[in-house]
Parts: sequence; structure tokens; C-alpha cells
Amino acid sequence: MKGLPLSKVYQLLEPGPVVLLTTARKGSPNVMTMSWHMMVEFEPPLVACVVSSANHSFAALRATRQCVIAIPARGLAAAVVKVGNSSGRNIDKFAAFGLTPMPAERVAPPLVAECFANLECEVADTRLVGRYNLFILEVLKAWTDPAQKKPKTIHHRGYGMFVVDGETIRLKSKMR
Amino acid sequence: MKGLPLSKVYQLLEPGPVVLLTTARKGSPNVMTMSWHMMVEFEPPLVACVVSSANHSFAALRATRQCVIAIPARGLAAAVVKVGNSSGRNIDKFAAFGLTPMPAERVAPPLVAECFANLECEVADTRLVGRYNLFILEVLKAWTDPAQKKPKTIHHRGYGMFVVDGETIRLKSKMR
Repeated sequence: MKGLPLSKVYQLLEPGPVVLLTTARKGSPNVMTMSWHMMVEFEPPLVACVVSSANHSFAALRATRQCVIAIPARGLAAAVVKVGNSSGRNIDKFAAFGLTPMPAERVAPPLVAECFANLECEVADTRLVGRYNLFILEVLKAWTDPAQKKPKTIHHRGYGMFVVDGETIRLKSKMR
Repeated sequence: MKGLPLSKVYQLLEPGPVVLLTTARKGSPNVMTMSWHMMVEFEPPLVACVVSSANHSFAALRATRQCVIAIPARGLAAAVVKVGNSSGRNIDKFAAFGLTPMPAERVAPPLVAECFANLECEVADTRLVGRYNLFILEVLKAWTDPAQKKPKTIHHRGYGMFVVDGETIRLKSKMR
């Protein structure tokens, strides 16, 4: 075994699927890129996520308590990175990067039409927002795009490196 | 877009790398399988994770406030599933499934020798344990195995389906 700098630990644990997070404030939608999220409960689905207070989306999420988690497949990787490299303070990222906002059913922030899944969420718990920027979200409504068959997700490994889903294996698991 | 049952939402968001979590209580180590974890801070690294109170590991983690997150590669998939399908209440899972506990440096729970990375952790925040079984961990020391080159991680998709890491792509990201 060899020691690993603590600053690199996130590159080991972070690789869940990269997602987009949309918010809306005063009629104006925004979208950011996010990799720090996890499931907390199966049903109703609860999701924890970290949205840095340095992100333009943070204030909208805290104030409106609504967002959409949109899950992009491999083909959107370039757009996803551009979304992550820019701020909604300065530009309309939907228009700039070819993403189409679609009305959601239960929340004001838009779905992203190009994503293979969209999850309409409301903030369920803010107790860890002050200390860690950690929100607990409840998924109110979930959508998938049947036109996108077997989408491959991308997983952030840090500094522009991404791993794409590879082979699928089946094992005798009792785990849900 | 087509509606997706809320019960299936976790299959979209969960696919971070499957990890093992070791604990130790009264001199007796245990290991469980976990997929619900996320990064919370870069450095010192903070990690959030959900350990169900139904798991034998829950009481040990809450009482001792220490654990090791061990990250297995593709070759360990079968053992990882067996660990997830059984309980430390009844068996010594290390012996039963061919995993080798190794002494850690900063915590009592063992590293898992066969894993390509091991993270020694202590519990940093328990405010959301009562409600969500959600622990905030601080990584105190991180190890990687230089003998395992380019390990491919596995990602749980529910009910015995796992996706293995595929191609790596590089994009011009400013994201750390």
C-alpha cells in the first residue's frame, strides 16, 4: 500500500454519474453541473447533494427550495463540461450550450430535454446547508426519455477526466 | 418523456463506485457493502454516507465513530456481492469471502488488502443520523495499492446489475 494525498481522495469516491441541476428564480432558469450527490432513501426517493455557496445556483436553490436533477448521457459530455465551466451570473447557459428547457410538472425549474432522465425535486431538509452546503432533496416526479436506449452515463474523475459506463454484469445480489 | 416509478429513481443516481465499509467493535471487525456515499468537501476530505440502522455495522459505526472505506475493483465483484448478501451478525465475512483485514494507521477498523484504495475515516457529524442514517465522515488517511494499475470500479444499478467502468475521456474542464 502507498499513501495517497488527501487532496486526491475525491477522485476515488466522486464517480457517480455527472448530473445537471436546474433552478429558477424570478422567472429565469439556470443550470449547473454536479457530481456530489447520493441516494438517502428509496421511496419516496430522498437524495443528498452538495451545491457550493460559490455557485450562482446556491441562492436560487435555498430561496425557492426547488430544482430538477437532469441526467445526461455520453453524447452530452461536451455541453456538460461547458455548463460546469461557466456561471449563470453572466450568461444563459441553456441558449449558449444548446440545452432545451422544458416545463416540469411539479416544480418551477425546467427539465432538460436532451437528458435521458429528469427528476423534479423539492428541498426536504436544510439542517446541513449552513455547515456543508448539503441539501436533502425529495424527488417528487421522475421522467425518462424512451427514445434514449441504454444511455451510458459519465463519471467525473477530476480535472477534465471522465469515465464512461462500460460493460454490464449481473451477479446474484439480494441488494435492491 | 415517460414517467418513471419513484421506486426506480435510485437506479439512476446510485451508480457511484460500490465500496466496502469496515468497522470494529470489541476486537471483532466487520465489513459491509455500500453504494450510498458522496463527497462533501475536498480537503480535509469529508464524505457523507448512509448506513441503514438494519445493518449490523450501524451500531459499531455509531458507537466507535470509526470506519474504513475500501474500494474494490472489478475482480472483487463476486466477493463484494457476497458481503452485501450476508450479515456480520452470523459469520466472519472476511474469512468467509477471502478478504484480508490489514491494520490501519489511524483507526481500529481494518483495511481490506485486496482493495485498490482504502480510506481511514472518523465520524465528524451525526446530526442527520437519527433521521436519515446519514453520517458525515472525515478521511484521516488514504491508501492506494500501486500494484493495481488502472483499476476499474463497479457501480450498482439495483437487483444484481452492475456497470463496470468503460473508456476514459478527457475534456477541457475547469472543474476540480
